[in-house]
Amino acid sequence: MLSVALSKGKMFDDSVQLLRRAGLLHRELVAESRQLAVEDGPFRFILARARDVPTYVEYGAAQLGMVGKDVLLESPDSGVAELLDLGFGYCRFVLAGPPQARGWEARSGKLRVATKFPRMTEEFLARRGKSAQIIVLHGSVELAPALGLADLIVDLVSTGRTLRENGLVELESLAEATARLVANPVSFRLRAREVATAVAALRTALGREGDGR
Amino acid sequence: MLSVALSKGKMFDDSVQLLRRAGLLHRELVAESRQLAVEDGPFRFILARARDVPTYVEYGAAQLGMVGKDVLLESPDSGVAELLDLGFGYCRFVLAGPPQARGWEARSGKLRVATKFPRMTEEFLARRGKSAQIIVLHGSVELAPALGLADLIVDLVSTGRTLRENGLVELESLAEATARLVANPVSFRLRAREVATAVAALRTALGREGDGR
Repeated sequence: MLSVALSKGKMFDDSVQLLRRAGLLHRELVAESRQLAVEDGPFRFILARARDVPTYVEYGAAQLGMVGKDVLLESPDSGVAELLDLGFGYCRFVLAGPPQARGWEARSGKLRVATKFPRMTEEFLARRGKSAQIIVLHGSVELAPALGLADLIVDLVSTGRTLRENGLVELESLAEATARLVANPVSFRLRAREVATAVAALRTALGREGDGR
Repeated sequence: MLSVALSKGKMFDDSVQLLRRAGLLHRELVAESRQLAVEDGPFRFILARARDVPTYVEYGAAQLGMVGKDVLLESPDSGVAELLDLGFGYCRFVLAGPPQARGWEARSGKLRVATKFPRMTEEFLARRGKSAQIIVLHGSVELAPALGLADLIVDLVSTGRTLRENGLVELESLAEATARLVANPVSFRLRAREVATAVAALRTALGREGDGR
């Protein structure tokens, strides 16, 4: 049996649709279900938090996984192999702040930046040669400037609506991300045929036969 | 205005009831609301993820906070002062595994332990002189043994129902936790009167006038 870890987050519906189109999934999968491991023919689907998908794949509890590039960028040492860009789940990492934060690079004094993504934030600030205090939050980062917790935020946006609703403007775009198919490098070799068959079916469903991605 | 950060998690209802009993809260507070900062008289209540409460307090965006001791134990360097044990929100950190994991300490070979609490887990294993690979997960830790991801888990339990439903048994109890009132040490001095008045009201509502806690 081949185990596939799926992110229960915003890209769940697109992942399920792709698996159906590829003929790999026939049963019902519900993200809010209490049943978090579902067997279907030769596959077992594991419904996981987005950030846990690389962990399941890294430790071999899943041979394949579908997860956003944003998650992979924030935990680059997970040791999973990226096989395919799945196209859906587009989002961007942005630096944002209140309108008066424009020109932030010229400001003197220590900046505070709130984010769920300390690694991306640190890397970005280092590239710019700016030092700042990074404040790690786990939710509602967009509130941090209004609550006096931070001057700026680094967050993921898709439409930008959350920024606008909180009176924030985008200052910089750091990186773009889409969903990826990832594999455990060992099972990619040891169970090559099974993995290759599944990957080929997904590639066909994406309309990308033979394009080498 | 005094800001109070509240955890939106399982202790939210008890926190709100205590604030009402203490006469500090008169407005409606709903954990699922999109409005995450609510002003009420001389107070502003910030509805935050449990793990973010110490952060709001540490950086002075809130002068007071209500949060589980479990969160404080996992991030002991947050630099907040613990003022009161609020009594509610009881839970325990436990080591658990499938029934055949009994006698785990005698097992040879490297153990894998899955948890959301790497610091507590590491400390516990060090006390026992055991080495293990700690696998950090962000959700559904109780599935890890059945999915072949880990031999054991360290997790928070209140009734133990989730363990039973997943065929796991408790092997060790690591620590107990209840909700705490925490304060920013600086505002505790600079805004001593406001903070002391609020703390006294909470202490009275807890029936603990003058017991020195």
